[in-house]
Amino acid sequence: MTEFDNKNDSVFHQTSEYRPSRSLLTMLIGKPLETAESSHQTIGKAVGLAVFASDALSSMAYSTQEMMLILAAAGTAAFGYIMPITLCIVGLLTILAISYEQTIHAYPEGGGAYIVARDNLGDTAAMTAAAALLTDYILTVAVSISSGVAQFTSVFPDLYHYRVLLAMGFVLFIMVVNLRGVKESGLTFAIPTYVFLSSISIMVIYGLFQLFAGDLGTVVDPPELEHDGPFSAITAFLILKAFASGTTALTGVEAISNGITAFKEPRTKNAGETLIIMSVLLGTLLLGVSYLTFRTGVIPSEVEANISQLARTIFHSKNILYLVTVGSTMLILIMAANTAFADYPRLSAMLARDGFLPRQFSWRGSRLVFSRGIVFLSTMAILLIVFFQASVNRLIPLYAVGVFVSFTLSQFGMAKRWHRIGKMKEGEVFHGHISIFKYDRHWLFKMLSNGIGAFCTLIISLIFGVTKFIDGVWFVLILTPFLVLIFSLIHSHYRTIASRLSLSDGEKSSPHITRHRVLLLVSGVHQSSIKALRYARTISDDITALHVAVDPEESEKIQERWQEWGDGYRLTILDSPYRLLLEPLLIYIEALLKKVDVNEVVTIVVPQFVSKLPAISLLHAKAADSLRNALIHYPNVVITEVPYDIDDL
Amino acid sequence: MTEFDNKNDSVFHQTSEYRPSRSLLTMLIGKPLETAESSHQTIGKAVGLAVFASDALSSMAYSTQEMMLILAAAGTAAFGYIMPITLCIVGLLTILAISYEQTIHAYPEGGGAYIVARDNLGDTAAMTAAAALLTDYILTVAVSISSGVAQFTSVFPDLYHYRVLLAMGFVLFIMVVNLRGVKESGLTFAIPTYVFLSSISIMVIYGLFQLFAGDLGTVVDPPELEHDGPFSAITAFLILKAFASGTTALTGVEAISNGITAFKEPRTKNAGETLIIMSVLLGTLLLGVSYLTFRTGVIPSEVEANISQLARTIFHSKNILYLVTVGSTMLILIMAANTAFADYPRLSAMLARDGFLPRQFSWRGSRLVFSRGIVFLSTMAILLIVFFQASVNRLIPLYAVGVFVSFTLSQFGMAKRWHRIGKMKEGEVFHGHISIFKYDRHWLFKMLSNGIGAFCTLIISLIFGVTKFIDGVWFVLILTPFLVLIFSLIHSHYRTIASRLSLSDGEKSSPHITRHRVLLLVSGVHQSSIKALRYARTISDDITALHVAVDPEESEKIQERWQEWGDGYRLTILDSPYRLLLEPLLIYIEALLKKVDVNEVVTIVVPQFVSKLPAISLLHAKAADSLRNALIHYPNVVITEVPYDIDDL
Repeated sequence: MTEFDNKNDSVFHQTSEYRPSRSLLTMLIGKPLETAESSHQTIGKAVGLAVFASDALSSMAYSTQEMMLILAAAGTAAFGYIMPITLCIVGLLTILAISYEQTIHAYPEGGGAYIVARDNLGDTAAMTAAAALLTDYILTVAVSISSGVAQFTSVFPDLYHYRVLLAMGFVLFIMVVNLRGVKESGLTFAIPTYVFLSSISIMVIYGLFQLFAGDLGTVVDPPELEHDGPFSAITAFLILKAFASGTTALTGVEAISNGITAFKEPRTKNAGETLIIMSVLLGTLLLGVSYLTFRTGVIPSEVEANISQLARTIFHSKNILYLVTVGSTMLILIMAANTAFADYPRLSAMLARDGFLPRQFSWRGSRLVFSRGIVFLSTMAILLIVFFQASVNRLIPLYAVGVFVSFTLSQFGMAKRWHRIGKMKEGEVFHGHISIFKYDRHWLFKMLSNGIGAFCTLIISLIFGVTKFIDGVWFVLILTPFLVLIFSLIHSHYRTIASRLSLSDGEKSSPHITRHRVLLLVSGVHQSSIKALRYARTISDDITALHVAVDPEESEKIQERWQEWGDGYRLTILDSPYRLLLEPLLIYIEALLKKVDVNEVVTIVVPQFVSKLPAISLLHAKAADSLRNALIHYPNVVITEVPYDIDDL
Repeated sequence: MTEFDNKNDSVFHQTSEYRPSRSLLTMLIGKPLETAESSHQTIGKAVGLAVFASDALSSMAYSTQEMMLILAAAGTAAFGYIMPITLCIVGLLTILAISYEQTIHAYPEGGGAYIVARDNLGDTAAMTAAAALLTDYILTVAVSISSGVAQFTSVFPDLYHYRVLLAMGFVLFIMVVNLRGVKESGLTFAIPTYVFLSSISIMVIYGLFQLFAGDLGTVVDPPELEHDGPFSAITAFLILKAFASGTTALTGVEAISNGITAFKEPRTKNAGETLIIMSVLLGTLLLGVSYLTFRTGVIPSEVEANISQLARTIFHSKNILYLVTVGSTMLILIMAANTAFADYPRLSAMLARDGFLPRQFSWRGSRLVFSRGIVFLSTMAILLIVFFQASVNRLIPLYAVGVFVSFTLSQFGMAKRWHRIGKMKEGEVFHGHISIFKYDRHWLFKMLSNGIGAFCTLIISLIFGVTKFIDGVWFVLILTPFLVLIFSLIHSHYRTIASRLSLSDGEKSSPHITRHRVLLLVSGVHQSSIKALRYARTISDDITALHVAVDPEESEKIQERWQEWGDGYRLTILDSPYRLLLEPLLIYIEALLKKVDVNEVVTIVVPQFVSKLPAISLLHAKAADSLRNALIHYPNVVITEVPYDIDDL
C-alpha cells in the first residue's frame, strides 16, 4: 500500500510545480505558462501607471489627428474647432475617471465591464459587453500597430509603401513574444512609458514656451491635405463626427479597473490614485498636443503623423529630441497592442467559466488554449490591417463604438448598483452574486456620477453609431448580436446538459454491468499487441482477438503465431477481399453490439504506437479515433488505446 | 451464448455491405465509396480506349502550339521546323508504344513505372518514379485544365480575362465530382472521346482535302505573335527546346499499362491492342494537326488556341462544326484532368502498402483518406494555376520532365528484366517479388526495344533538363530528391519499428500484470460520471475518484453527493488554488506513476460527453487527449474515455 491508497476523501495538496518535459514545441515557443507564479507579484503606483496606462496614453498619438481628418472635409478653416472639441473630450475624461474610481472601490477583485454588467444588469448586458470587448481587443491591436507604423514611416517616409508589411511584421513579433510568454518585468513597461511621458511633456512645455515668447514656428513643408472635390460646409454632423473620432483618446481608461489585483495593498486606494494620475496626465497632455497642433498648422495626414510634424516644428528639426519623441510614441503604441494580448485570453477564460464560451478556455495555464487565442487574435488583427491597408483613419469607425458600448454598460451597471444600495438599511451588508453590497450614505452622489457617466457614454455611442454608420459601425452592429447569440447558445447548451444529467435521489442511473466483453484488435503478433493482450486480460476474461485479413499470406502467419503467443484466447479473422480495413471491423462490431444486452459492455482494445513527434505520430493511424467516430451512438461500447511508446526504440 | 461466442479461430465472412448512418457530410459529398463494386466491371477495347486515352489524346490540343511558341522566338520562319519535329515525336511514339506493349504482357496486374522500377531496379528507382508521378498528376490537372480553359476562351474571347477563375472553377468542379464519387459509366467517357476523335478526324481529312483541292485558306485575323525585342537566330538549342515542348504529346501513353486489370479477358491482349490503336490514332492525328497548323499559318497564342484557329479556318467560320471540335477538345482535356484524380490515390495507396507513405493511405474505401488526397491534389493544382496564371506555356517546363523520368525508369527496368530473363534456361520460371519471370526466346529483341525506349526517353529527359532548366525544371530537380528522402525516411521508420517489435521465441515480452489501479476523473456527480464509475468497477476494484477543486464551494457539494452515489469508493480532492485543471491532475498522477511497479498498470477513466455534431463536440473538452499527450512516455498508464452520448438528451 502506498501513500495514495490510504487517502480516503482526502485533499491532495499541490507541493511542486508541474514541469512537463521539453519538446520541440517547447523549445520554439517556450515552457508552459506559470499562471500561479504571476499572481504573487504586486506592483506600486509608478509601475502600475506604466503597465496599465499604455493603452490610454498611446491614444493621444492618433486622436487629435483623427479629429482633424474629419474636419478637413470642410477645409483648414474648420481646424478652429480642434480646441472646443478637445475641451469636451477632456471634460468627458473627468467624468469617466470619477466613475471608474468608484468602480475600483466597488469591485476590488477587478471590475471590467463584463463583470459589472453581469453583476448588476444580467446575462444579456454582460454578453453584449463581452462581445464588444472581444472585438475591441482585436481592433486595439490593429489600430495601435497601424498608428505605430505611421510614426515609424513619418521618420522614414521611404518605407510608407511597405506600411502593411511592417504592420504585419509587428503583429507577428508581438504574437511570438506572447506565445513564448516572456516574463515582462515592470521595467520593460516603465522605460518606454516614462520616456514617452517625458518627451511629450518636454515637447508641450517647450512648445508653449515658444508660443509665449512669440517664436513658435509653423510646420515646414507639411504633407498635402488629402481631399477630393469641393470642401463641404461646417455642419453640426461634421463636428459631431470629428468629436466621435476624437473620443478615441478615451479608449483604455478602463484598463486599471480590470487589473486592480495587480496592485500593492491597499490596492483599491493605489489603483484609484493611479487612475486619477493617469487621467490628469492624459487630459493635460492631450490639451497641450491639440493646442500646439492647432497653432503650428499641422496638416492631418496618413503619410506624416501629427506627433512627427509637431515634434520637428517645436524641436526645429529632425534631431535627437524629435527621434526620441516619435520613437517612444511608436513604442507605447506597440505596448498598447501588447496589452490586448493579455486581456483577450483573460476575458475568454472568464466567459468560459461562466459557460458562455467552451469550458476548456477556462483552463488557465493550458498553453494550448492560450496559444490558440493569441494566434486567433493576431490573425484577425492582420486581416484587418491588410483589408484596411494599415490606415488608422479607416479602422477608427469600427473601433471606438465597442469601447463606448462597454463603457455605457459598465457605468449604467454601477448606477443601478448604487440605486440598490440606496434602498438598503444603514450598516446592512448583502452578498451578491459576484460582489458585496454595503450600505453607503453617499450612494446618491455616486449614483448620479455613474449615471452621468452612463448618459455621456451612451450619447457618444449614439453619435458614433449615427455619424460613422456607413464607415463601418454597421458591421459592428451585425457582429455584436451575432456573438451574443453564439454566447447564449453555448450557455443554454451547458444548462441543458447540466439539468438532464442530474441524478434524482433514490433513482439509480446507469445499470450495473453484468458482463464485460473485450475485442482486441491485432494487426500483427508483436510486442505492442502482446502488451495490449496483457492489459485486456486484467479487464475481463471474455476476450476475442480480431484480425482483418488484408493480406491472406500474412494473416496465416499471424494465426500460427497467435497459437504460440495468444495465451489461448480465440482469434477471429475478418475477411477483407478488397483490402478494406475499417469496414470489416465495423460490420463485425455492429453485428455484435446489436446482440449485446443493455447491462453488458464491450471494450475494444486497440494497440497504438505513440510518439512525442507529430511527424512520427502521423505514420501510425489512430484506428481508435475512427472507431469512436463510427460507434459514437452505441452506449455500451468503450474504446481503449493501449499505448506503445516507439520513441524509446 | 451468441453466435459470436462460439467462434474460435474462425473466419468471419463479410455478408453485408457496411452502410454507416447518413450524416451531414454524407449528404454533401455522397455515401462512402464502394471500392468492392467497382472491381467487378471489366471493359472492352472500345470503352477502354475512351477511359484510358483521354490523357494521351488530349495532349494533341497543346503540344503543337507549345512547340511553336518556342520556335516563335526566331520568328515565323522557324515554323518550317514544325513538321520535322512532329515526325521525330511520332517516331518516338512508335518506340514507346512497342515498349509499353511489352510491359503490358509482362505485368498483367498493372505495370506502372513505380511497379516496374520496384520490381527490377530497386527501391530508390521506385521512389524516384513515384515522386515524379505524384508531382506529374498535379501538373496534369493544372496543364489540362488550363488548356481546356484556353479552348473555352478561344470561343468566348471576352472571358479570357477570367481564365484563372474559370480554371479554378473547373478544378473545384472535378474535385466535388470525385469527392462524391459518382459512378462513371464507360459511356460518360466514350461520348466525349469519340466525338473528339471524330471531329478532329473530320477536320484533318477535310483540311487535307482542301489542301489537295488547292483551296485551303489561311487563318483570318490571327492573334498577334507575342514577342518582345528582336528575333533570335534558329539555333540547335531552340529546336531542341521546341522538340522538348512537343514531346508533351506523349504524356499519357503509359495510362493503359496502369489499368490492365480493367480490361475484359484476355486482358493483356485487349490492353495491348488498345494501346496500339491509341498510338496509331494519336500519331496520325498529330501529324495531320501539325501539318495543317503549318499550312494554314496558325499563330501560336495563349489568347486563341491552335485547334480553334485551325477549326475556324478549315470549317470557314465559327459554325457548328467549329463549336463541336473546340467543345469536345475542351471536354477531353477536362477528362484528362479527371484521370489524375483516380491515379493519385491509387498510387498513394500502393506507396503506403509498401511502406513509403503513412500506412493509413492504404486503407482503401476509407473516404477520409481518399478525400484528403483529392483535396490535396486540387489545392496544389489550383495553386499552380494561380501562380502561373493558367498559362499552359508557363506550366509545361515543370510538367513533362517528370513524365519522361518515369518513362525512362520504366523502360530501363523492362530492359533489365529481359536481360535477366535472357540468363534463364528455356522453360524456367522464377517467381519474383512482384512479377513472374518466364524464359522468352525473344528476350534479346525485347531487351533492345525497351533499351532503345529507355535511351530515347533518357535523352529527352536530358534535353528537357538542359533547355528548360531555368524555366522550371530546377524546381522539379529540388522537389523530387526531397520527396524521395521523405519516402525513404518513412520506409526506414516502419522497418525499424517492425524489427524492434518482433517477438523472439521463448522470450516473454511485457510482464503479466499483477495489479490494476483505476483513477476516475470526476468533474461532478452526474449520470455521465456514474456511468464511468460503473465501467471502472468492471475493470478493477482498486478505484480512486479524483476531483480537481477549481471551485471550493462546488467541490464540497461533490464530496457530499459522492457519499451517496460513489458506491463507497474513495474520492480524492486535488487542490487548485489558481483554478488550473490539468496541472494538479498531472502532479498527482505522475507522483503515483513513479511509485507504480513495472508489472502494475494504471487506467485513468475519463467520462466524456460525445456528440456527432462537431460544434457541440467543441464545447466539451477532450481531457483524455491532453492527459495522453502529457503521459505519453509512461509505459504503464492507459487512458480510457467512457463516452456519454449527449445527442439523445
